[in-house]
Amino acid sequence: MRVPEHRLRRLATALLDQRGAPAAAAWLQADLLIEAELRGLPSHGLMRLPRLLARIDAGLADPAAKGRHRWRSAGVLQVDGQRALGPVALMAALEALTTRLGTTGIAMAALRDTNHLGMLAYYVEEAAARGMIGIVLSTSEALVHPQGGTQALLGTNPVAIGIPTGAAPFVLDLATSQVPMGRIHAHALRGEPIPEGWAVDAAGQPTQDAEAAKSGALAPFGGAKGYGLGLAFELIVALLAGSELAPQVRGTLDASHPATKGDLLILIDPGAVSGVIGGAARLTAYLDLLRASRPACPDTPVAIPGDGARRRKAAAQRDGIDIPEPLLDELRGLCSRGLSPRKTNGGEEEWSISARSGRRER
Amino acid sequence: MRVPEHRLRRLATALLDQRGAPAAAAWLQADLLIEAELRGLPSHGLMRLPRLLARIDAGLADPAAKGRHRWRSAGVLQVDGQRALGPVALMAALEALTTRLGTTGIAMAALRDTNHLGMLAYYVEEAAARGMIGIVLSTSEALVHPQGGTQALLGTNPVAIGIPTGAAPFVLDLATSQVPMGRIHAHALRGEPIPEGWAVDAAGQPTQDAEAAKSGALAPFGGAKGYGLGLAFELIVALLAGSELAPQVRGTLDASHPATKGDLLILIDPGAVSGVIGGAARLTAYLDLLRASRPACPDTPVAIPGDGARRRKAAAQRDGIDIPEPLLDELRGLCSRGLSPRKTNGGEEEWSISARSGRRER
Repeated sequence: MRVPEHRLRRLATALLDQRGAPAAAAWLQADLLIEAELRGLPSHGLMRLPRLLARIDAGLADPAAKGRHRWRSAGVLQVDGQRALGPVALMAALEALTTRLGTTGIAMAALRDTNHLGMLAYYVEEAAARGMIGIVLSTSEALVHPQGGTQALLGTNPVAIGIPTGAAPFVLDLATSQVPMGRIHAHALRGEPIPEGWAVDAAGQPTQDAEAAKSGALAPFGGAKGYGLGLAFELIVALLAGSELAPQVRGTLDASHPATKGDLLILIDPGAVSGVIGGAARLTAYLDLLRASRPACPDTPVAIPGDGARRRKAAAQRDGIDIPEPLLDELRGLCSRGLSPRKTNGGEEEWSISARSGRRER
Repeated sequence: MRVPEHRLRRLATALLDQRGAPAAAAWLQADLLIEAELRGLPSHGLMRLPRLLARIDAGLADPAAKGRHRWRSAGVLQVDGQRALGPVALMAALEALTTRLGTTGIAMAALRDTNHLGMLAYYVEEAAARGMIGIVLSTSEALVHPQGGTQALLGTNPVAIGIPTGAAPFVLDLATSQVPMGRIHAHALRGEPIPEGWAVDAAGQPTQDAEAAKSGALAPFGGAKGYGLGLAFELIVALLAGSELAPQVRGTLDASHPATKGDLLILIDPGAVSGVIGGAARLTAYLDLLRASRPACPDTPVAIPGDGARRRKAAAQRDGIDIPEPLLDELRGLCSRGLSPRKTNGGEEEWSISARSGRRER
């Protein structure tokens, strides 16, 4: 069903608020989840919220924590995450690094003991919107097999890159696996086979059976090259953040372990180097040249990373976010269950959510 | 034919020496080319030397230049390359950044107006051997089509990453194209077809005709993800180095234009962050776990990027470098042609080269 963005935002914020999240933290975490929904990335949207709330309830996520900062050198910030919400810790690190860029031109934060960052595009787009190049790396549980291997020993190790261009920022966000594990689960749920080359089963045999793939391993994207990049990211993050390597990572997919993955944020001030007038505008002209270039399929223009997300977001802001009714029911149920009600600013929309939530509670 | 490493090294050094390269610059440029040969990457080896010498003769490469350094901030070095040899400018930048790492923990150099860097693995391995994480990006002429596109508008935009691990450094070096253009040329030379998915022809049609692919465009590696990464690297380098975007890049494949691509070097001091005892040793154990994991083909163990290069280098150091006789003839011819002889240290090997060169001159 389609639900207006603002209603889902209020619902998510209220759920976090009920669990003691400071207003700014609740707003930020909810905003991240809603942004993922708006951009058509439901795997990183509200379906993550029940588990996150369970992690707060279990003491595995502390919505009031921001991470303890320690500058190891002028440009390098070490963040002991203190079980903070991922976006809270990451944005606090981003703010801290920003203060150093005027001096160092490039700065990096390495984070451990924070919860799931969610959609990485969120952070690098924010960096680019502020005129900086932003790069985020993050690690995960072991889900990906090495090229030429068959066992899940690497994380999905995503990377996101944001670049100011003069027009809308360039935003790239990708996992180094061929597909996300969520896509395998979605196929299994629908009883559909998966395409060749996506995964192997638990015995290491290539499989098109989504159910069998769930207990197997995902292929790295792009063969040996994608494997090499994912592995390099795995090593860099673990080395710099002091976080676990994939086989020992827990806590981004469960509600029973502390999060032991690591995250890295690098910011670069482009003004610090180029000194080229109109440098960013030049990038825009180049990207437009790519968009206007001869496509492989006549009716499918060449796209720039981020174009599709912007289009989907505009549509979802107009037509509402398409959210599965069971998930909405679950969230509404969580909203009125168990916890003592907290004072809110009231207003028709919140009342409306509470009323529905009451009706639908199971 | 197989030629001992030291002979080829002397020959390459002598050729550069004859053109006025200072001893250190000649040694470094020759060492880079020989290393590429040793590691089984002849496309970045001695076959590049005749064009480089022609560039020196034409004033497009200045073997005495090292690049003019300007610190734009504490951690960011801008290098005006002054037509320096690529390895000379890059290693000078690496040395300069190294002096800042103790203060900043992370530092970056952006270079323009330098000649071809050659095999990027060379630099990041050196960084890792000195205990630093090294990342190099470089741009190139437009040879790659965007995903969903058909025209050569992107560079091959390689990336290299070196990471200290406790044992041999982890070294990754890859282009963001599916294959290098050199591989297409090699197939065309042998009259062999190329596999599906490597390239399109000038009309934008997928082709398996290597000759037709030469005037077409290479596919990005890994579909949309590899395209996105290559594009991100293209934008970052151009923005930070103030160098040209791919359609305007010249001078790495010809002997008639100044080199207008850009290069980026990022160094990170791992000790600045982790504070984890045995951090690097932990990486070695993890890489060994990958190597020992269950392979897809029983007789092909899982490899770590850099393993193959190390094996090939050991074999070439033992058995000699396999070099095509026409190339060797060409180099020997260049050695005795046109230029006034310069005083050398003498020695049997050089005499031997000169003698052969004289015999074979065309």
